[in-house]
Amino acid sequence: MTPEHDSSRHDRASVADVALSLLDEVGLADLSMRRIAARLDVQPSALYWHFSSKQELLAELSDRITASLRAADGDVLALARRIRDALFTYRDGAELVLSSSALGLGSSHAQSALEDALRRADADDPPDRAVALMHFILGHATLVQQRMHADSYGAASPTAGDDATAGLDRVFDLGIAALAGSARSRSVS
Amino acid sequence: MTPEHDSSRHDRASVADVALSLLDEVGLADLSMRRIAARLDVQPSALYWHFSSKQELLAELSDRITASLRAADGDVLALARRIRDALFTYRDGAELVLSSSALGLGSSHAQSALEDALRRADADDPPDRAVALMHFILGHATLVQQRMHADSYGAASPTAGDDATAGLDRVFDLGIAALAGSARSRSVS
Repeated sequence: MTPEHDSSRHDRASVADVALSLLDEVGLADLSMRRIAARLDVQPSALYWHFSSKQELLAELSDRITASLRAADGDVLALARRIRDALFTYRDGAELVLSSSALGLGSSHAQSALEDALRRADADDPPDRAVALMHFILGHATLVQQRMHADSYGAASPTAGDDATAGLDRVFDLGIAALAGSARSRSVS
Repeated sequence: MTPEHDSSRHDRASVADVALSLLDEVGLADLSMRRIAARLDVQPSALYWHFSSKQELLAELSDRITASLRAADGDVLALARRIRDALFTYRDGAELVLSSSALGLGSSHAQSALEDALRRADADDPPDRAVALMHFILGHATLVQQRMHADSYGAASPTAGDDATAGLDRVFDLGIAALAGSARSRSVS
């Protein structure tokens, strides 16, 4: 078997599948191309057969995490909660989507869905508001996800308990209502 | 000279000084205790003479980055811009402050200053609003800082140019005004 044949044993989708399950195990900081290749039992160079760079692979993972939000209905708050929950589905999901978004890579299902919801609610300036909402959701979710992970290892300070989590949900709803900026969104709870 | 004497050649402040300048050179992902120790010409174990963990050292850096905001006056928007600019002072500054904040480590100069500014503006619910503002500022600044760094290496997509940067400033101001929630803050530009 030539190396080319060996590297194409896996297709783009199966590489992404493995990378996503490895993300859950080791976290974003330790998700290296070397480690993904080892899990697939191929050389790291074989991965570049399917993805031109690690950033392109991470963008694909980001798209998968937000794929369920493609054709979203509902009001801004309900949608924002679904985005947050999608980011929480995989370890470091929020940080990964934030990074891909910073690089302008991957699609923007979540942001487009927010913009649509803002238009349905007659909000002013849907495009800028959708970006501001994404920045808030990504900042909030990254922070909460890091705290939850630290809690599970006993690394966070004792102040971060159940009360803190309830407080964070309240802060999230307040932030979304304020950024959505329409009377209709504000009255939704 | 005993190892103890050798390790105390540096005090807590000088270790933090070196770590902060190294952060600027290598970024947060590569800021290891090993690397900081090498720069100081000591063994990594000597650093634990001054900081009980890497997280405690990062919390000290986070405090330094936000120290200038301790006794801040001005309205919410002016203060929010000063916080953003402080985060931009060091490479990955926003990500570092976000992580320390997630762990409940370090002080919270910036959040306290926001809470004071919200009270001066007669905003509803200053404590929750201050947290929501911090999550927005940290999410926005982390994203913008990663994009700027990628731009300097040519790694971002071509859509992220000068226009994108101007758009991001507009999004920041919109987000802060909405989250500040008072008529007074909204009218400030």
